[in-house]
Amino acid sequence: MLRLRVPTATVERLSIYLRTLRRLEDERVIPSQELADLVGASDAQIRKDLTYFGEFGVPGQGYRVGILKEEISHILGVDKTWWTVLVGTGNLGAALLAYPGFKQHGFKIKVAFDNDLSKIGKMWQGVKIEDVEKIPQVLSEEEIKIGIITTPAKAAQEVANKLIEGGVEGILNFAPTRISVPETVKLKSVDLSIGPEGLAYFLGEKKE
Amino acid sequence: MLRLRVPTATVERLSIYLRTLRRLEDERVIPSQELADLVGASDAQIRKDLTYFGEFGVPGQGYRVGILKEEISHILGVDKTWWTVLVGTGNLGAALLAYPGFKQHGFKIKVAFDNDLSKIGKMWQGVKIEDVEKIPQVLSEEEIKIGIITTPAKAAQEVANKLIEGGVEGILNFAPTRISVPETVKLKSVDLSIGPEGLAYFLGEKKE
Repeated sequence: MLRLRVPTATVERLSIYLRTLRRLEDERVIPSQELADLVGASDAQIRKDLTYFGEFGVPGQGYRVGILKEEISHILGVDKTWWTVLVGTGNLGAALLAYPGFKQHGFKIKVAFDNDLSKIGKMWQGVKIEDVEKIPQVLSEEEIKIGIITTPAKAAQEVANKLIEGGVEGILNFAPTRISVPETVKLKSVDLSIGPEGLAYFLGEKKE
Repeated sequence: MLRLRVPTATVERLSIYLRTLRRLEDERVIPSQELADLVGASDAQIRKDLTYFGEFGVPGQGYRVGILKEEISHILGVDKTWWTVLVGTGNLGAALLAYPGFKQHGFKIKVAFDNDLSKIGKMWQGVKIEDVEKIPQVLSEEEIKIGIITTPAKAAQEVANKLIEGGVEGILNFAPTRISVPETVKLKSVDLSIGPEGLAYFLGEKKE
């Protein structure tokens, strides 16, 4: 399949569209304006985002929910299983491991890593905790392409280096810091403080 | 100040712009195209987002980092302190409480709530844990406008109802479920599984 270069923002919006579609009945045909209102984007924006991948609407009617949901799942690659490793078995790691969205969307954690000697070798919610020093070795034995970092900020770059040494192609960074990776590795950083900022804006707006 | 109705997507992008600006030197004047590349949006999109609030660029040169950072902080309301309560002192709650971005951006947790009798009355990272049943009462005594939900999915709606009963104006929901609130309350839901979806797309793209 030949694809145009798709902007990151489009891919993020596809995720939001998918999330919204999952809450709707598969059999429904949703008018494009209604979908736009639900996802908080314009009708034209949705059409433009989908244009990268093909033609999905029912002319004059809108979108068939079930079909659009399947198509976007396929585009995003969340209709298959992605095995991952998670580094940092603290609160944030535990929260992610328990988060239903992770498993439902095909992300499974095969091995966890920590540098805490009291944790290494133990099972953690069904996943074995290995020594961070073994990251390159364990990764070279398994077919794992995604590493998730949930360490404190100060450990994140060193952990990223070990993941890259082990051959991951993508890193999902939840540590509250910026990390550098070579161009061949895809990095996605998640900042948990983005939520409250948006909320503060709208609360400020109410007062005026 | 008279404001046009600003789309949620614009407010979210302002957060992303702010995050990027925080990593740059205040004294720099950044060409608009360079800022666009850093934030992953188009030059025109940034200009359009800022147009809601005024004129911020230096014509023919770009944006002055320090000034734009201050302006966006002010627009978003993150240049002041927002007192909040947090409900659910499990892993996700603990992870958020420890997340540096929360405190740095003006969000402070005054009281925490849980329904676990073994936790109620104890201190938790410097914050007292109260009984969830007391949410309306505690909120009516304090000037708190934001409630953060980090409970399991099944408890989220009931907790939201209690927060609303206590008079919060905004709810930040990290529980992996959808909750309903009246129109007078601003709801922001954060889905932690949106990160890996974007990553999966780009890993899939590499193979083609």
